[in-house]
Amino acid sequence: MKTKIIFIIGVSGVGKSTVANLLSKKLQVPFFDGDDFHHEKNIKKMASGTPLNDADRYDWLQSLNELAIKHVKAKTSCIIVCSALKQAYRDILSHQIEKYSEWVFLHGSFDQIKKRLDNRKNHFMSSELLKSQFDTLEEPTNAIKINVEKSPEHIVEIIKNLSNNKSEFGLFGLGVMGKSLSRNLANNGVKLSLFNRHIAGKEENIALNFKKEFPELATALPFDDIAAFVNSIQQPRKIMLMVNAGKTIDLVIENLLPYLTKGDILIDGGNSNYNKTKERHDYLKSKNIYFIGAGVSGGEEGALRGPSIMPGGNEETYKKIQPFLEKIAAKDENKLPCCSYIGPEGSGHFVKMVHNGIEYAEMQLLAEVFTLLKNLGKNPDEIAAILESWKAIENSYLLEITIDILRKKDGEDWLIHKIMDKAGNKGTGNWTTIATAQLGIPSTMVASSLFARYISFFKEERITVSTYFNTNDLSLNLNSEEILKAYQFARIINHYQGFKLIKEASNRNNWNINLSELARIWTNGCIIRSDLMTSLVTTFKTVDNILHEPEIIEKLQALKPFIKKVVTEGIVNEVAVPTLTDAISFLNSFSKATSSANIIQAQRDYFGAHTYQRTDDTSGKFYHTHWAKN
Amino acid sequence: MKTKIIFIIGVSGVGKSTVANLLSKKLQVPFFDGDDFHHEKNIKKMASGTPLNDADRYDWLQSLNELAIKHVKAKTSCIIVCSALKQAYRDILSHQIEKYSEWVFLHGSFDQIKKRLDNRKNHFMSSELLKSQFDTLEEPTNAIKINVEKSPEHIVEIIKNLSNNKSEFGLFGLGVMGKSLSRNLANNGVKLSLFNRHIAGKEENIALNFKKEFPELATALPFDDIAAFVNSIQQPRKIMLMVNAGKTIDLVIENLLPYLTKGDILIDGGNSNYNKTKERHDYLKSKNIYFIGAGVSGGEEGALRGPSIMPGGNEETYKKIQPFLEKIAAKDENKLPCCSYIGPEGSGHFVKMVHNGIEYAEMQLLAEVFTLLKNLGKNPDEIAAILESWKAIENSYLLEITIDILRKKDGEDWLIHKIMDKAGNKGTGNWTTIATAQLGIPSTMVASSLFARYISFFKEERITVSTYFNTNDLSLNLNSEEILKAYQFARIINHYQGFKLIKEASNRNNWNINLSELARIWTNGCIIRSDLMTSLVTTFKTVDNILHEPEIIEKLQALKPFIKKVVTEGIVNEVAVPTLTDAISFLNSFSKATSSANIIQAQRDYFGAHTYQRTDDTSGKFYHTHWAKN
Repeated sequence: MKTKIIFIIGVSGVGKSTVANLLSKKLQVPFFDGDDFHHEKNIKKMASGTPLNDADRYDWLQSLNELAIKHVKAKTSCIIVCSALKQAYRDILSHQIEKYSEWVFLHGSFDQIKKRLDNRKNHFMSSELLKSQFDTLEEPTNAIKINVEKSPEHIVEIIKNLSNNKSEFGLFGLGVMGKSLSRNLANNGVKLSLFNRHIAGKEENIALNFKKEFPELATALPFDDIAAFVNSIQQPRKIMLMVNAGKTIDLVIENLLPYLTKGDILIDGGNSNYNKTKERHDYLKSKNIYFIGAGVSGGEEGALRGPSIMPGGNEETYKKIQPFLEKIAAKDENKLPCCSYIGPEGSGHFVKMVHNGIEYAEMQLLAEVFTLLKNLGKNPDEIAAILESWKAIENSYLLEITIDILRKKDGEDWLIHKIMDKAGNKGTGNWTTIATAQLGIPSTMVASSLFARYISFFKEERITVSTYFNTNDLSLNLNSEEILKAYQFARIINHYQGFKLIKEASNRNNWNINLSELARIWTNGCIIRSDLMTSLVTTFKTVDNILHEPEIIEKLQALKPFIKKVVTEGIVNEVAVPTLTDAISFLNSFSKATSSANIIQAQRDYFGAHTYQRTDDTSGKFYHTHWAKN
Repeated sequence: MKTKIIFIIGVSGVGKSTVANLLSKKLQVPFFDGDDFHHEKNIKKMASGTPLNDADRYDWLQSLNELAIKHVKAKTSCIIVCSALKQAYRDILSHQIEKYSEWVFLHGSFDQIKKRLDNRKNHFMSSELLKSQFDTLEEPTNAIKINVEKSPEHIVEIIKNLSNNKSEFGLFGLGVMGKSLSRNLANNGVKLSLFNRHIAGKEENIALNFKKEFPELATALPFDDIAAFVNSIQQPRKIMLMVNAGKTIDLVIENLLPYLTKGDILIDGGNSNYNKTKERHDYLKSKNIYFIGAGVSGGEEGALRGPSIMPGGNEETYKKIQPFLEKIAAKDENKLPCCSYIGPEGSGHFVKMVHNGIEYAEMQLLAEVFTLLKNLGKNPDEIAAILESWKAIENSYLLEITIDILRKKDGEDWLIHKIMDKAGNKGTGNWTTIATAQLGIPSTMVASSLFARYISFFKEERITVSTYFNTNDLSLNLNSEEILKAYQFARIINHYQGFKLIKEASNRNNWNINLSELARIWTNGCIIRSDLMTSLVTTFKTVDNILHEPEIIEKLQALKPFIKKVVTEGIVNEVAVPTLTDAISFLNSFSKATSSANIIQAQRDYFGAHTYQRTDDTSGKFYHTHWAKN
């Protein structure tokens, strides 16, 4: 055992001596009761019922500090019992031996302690002084905090564990993703502290019960008290927050702050808004706490077996948590971790947001493929068989799971037929659309997939409107080969738009994001992993814009007749294919050297005097015309 | 002349007595020099070079106050000259006669005044005391403030005008829209104060020069000093702000606040974000100032001849400015003003934002019509002739101006051919798209028009990409009749989406917006006025959703084959028609009783355990399935 001075502290009556005595035997180190070191006059004063003042205490605390220093010099540990209610007292006690000092704070409510004191006989401290002790008490933020409800044996066990055995990494929040990441970390040999809040009747002993459920968590330390959780982690602490984005994360940060120490690192692994991540980074920096905003993709399964991780923030800070994140990340085809430093500020959460935007469109394209094949009279198993045959050509994780989904039965019928067609959303598709609008980058396919979900949500209105707009004699003239080619075309455009949004944001914010490396960490673990993504790792080594890459141009040209046919058949036969449509619509707009925006500019100048530039004046000068005839 | 006590104030040497003397003659009322009322000891003290203290001044100020009260009781006016440097002194002077008191503050820089004093002989005030006077000076916020540079005759003229002649309405900010609205107000007989900031070398005497330029502004009072501007307006003041949205408006509000009085009303006539308008309303309410956020549409010409005005905020406040806004608003076909109270909070700016969103799509549809007709080989004059023939069927302001635009020549060529095809935007289309994303309402056509502008902006990339994606053998098989019908169809869907966005926002915020009344104030003055809009006034009297109106359903059904043909021809022949496409795409999605969102929900549940609802369980229960095969 490393030399340490264990101070057991708390108000009178919490049972400090009993615990110290037991612990002393367990650890086989001497224990000293601070009260025994009081000078005669202090003892008399206390016995007469007069509280000590700080001057009374000074010499006494210094004697205890000398006792501790003597032990440290001799490289022997010891336990010292002392109420040490104020931080100033604790500063005297641990003077010059701060890094050898360990604090155990025994605590309870006033009523709890009063009852204990009233039951004691012959104690020279009258219970009436207790109130003044509670008034004096400044709770330590760096102590192992244990409630006196527990038996002395239990308390000693907790102290022994925590004291010998601090964790390397903390995980805060045990929802679906938090639990999976915890198990992943534990499976990779990381000594963990786990925290989940306590809400009476709703969330009780979550961390403890979770630990009991999985053998890999045998050495993990479970908590529902923030102070104890934080103090169980080695400094500088590394704590990953897996809580809801938005107000919750700010609340959690405020709750943690009092217990953190300069240099500790918080990692936000949720889907936080990238602008907020920058704000939080700057706020925590002002408190000497480091902050990393890390996008984590892979869902429940990915989090457990290996997600794709997109950390953003200060690079030096990242290096300190890199070994942990790389351990748990998925591995690419070369066994390299699907985790890579993205860039400063909120860039990690930005790319995760765009990842989810790409995901929205990828999901919507498969939904449209399903709709087209369904309209051709295929049942889910037949559609699954068709998609199965596409794996060799255009495989992706989302394609695979869609096949599983289509094959799932519910009694005699397919389960997909029973699922309510109102799509939810959790904000990232929405944010990507907003970012696209704010940054002036036309990610049309994310927007149309978002709107497709919104349209789906107006189920009741759709049912009514459907009765007004029946068209007879519709018949889709398509085959599955054509649909595959349209789907391939649309996926390329979707990836072009997503990476373009990232590239433009990176340029404007000086994030310096490496697109090839980003594609690489998206080749495994994440929801949008696919053969196409794997091919983009190479593509982005030579270009930062895939519409400039000859192979891709050739492929798009070859596929274009098919998406034209599929989309126009869809439109004419009133099949909802908005995102496939946007793919060809986009290229039809984007591949025009001249657009119709001259009309827009003339209109704006006509009614709003907004002025325009001329094609024959490269100086950038602005012109205004008096357009009206009269 | 109404009884008033005119106090002429300022430091020694500004020329108070000279001005008072002249003014006394002009107004034929007595003038009293405060200095003549000093007790002997004060005069001696000043002569010895010692400044007076407040105790010295008290009796003196009270004598002047008694003098003033005597005049008020006798219902006679008078002029009193007194330095009155502190607010406390002015409070004594006007005690019990506040509403009869008028303040004229003569001011200048220290150097200016020092020079004047040094030129005076035999004055009992030594110029060395000047510095202490400047230190003491608390500038009045409720005075007519005039710089001493001007000649005494000029000063007296200003005082006489302002004093007899306060304005009914203030207009702050003389940009394109501010100038047009000012002339409109003046043409309608409103006595105006005009303000434009002074920026040396850039914006000098803007208000004065503008007044000189237009005869209707003969009685308007021009300012470049905020205090003088505010004090020239009758209380409670009504001041319309026509400045840039965003930070500028907040700055302007802060600059105005010190001079405003409880009950004054500010009207923000710019395109402010509706969320910010609510914040500003609440902030100003805390300062007892009222705030109306009024959308104003019509561009430069509309602002001058009659815009459409959409005021939002507190209804009682609106009633106080209603006569002014109704005077300047355009008139509908029944001669009723195109101005109507929209609802509380930022609802006025919200509907203006959506107005602009609808406008974005209307402009884009015309740009696409132009592109299609151009691809059919028509020149701008031929296209204009076709659009001219559409007026009888589908007229609108935007159609009319597009015809004018197409006919405009630039030498031998048409001007439209010389206009750079990179479209600008000023935020409202962007905000509408963001609102659509945030509120979950699929206004797909605003979004696609916004994105069309964004795409146009990547001119250099488009030129490069165009060389990669050439397709030969394209030929559009369409006639102008078909294009007209597609255009009509798309306009209905665009209006459906815009009004739906407003309806949903109104429901969620309890704004209680009357859609028929809103359509009515959009029938004239604004950019999106059209025959369709006029017909919607009636439609919205019976339904709040135009997709439920039999006539509209019938019309859409009749037009549908044509938009299908136009869009599919466009797609196949690679003509950029994204917003026409979104119109049919939207109805194809929205008129389906079942959507493909069941696939999305299954995918979300598969990888993220997001759960789903079932069509055969109306309880709303959420289900989770273990989907993977293994």
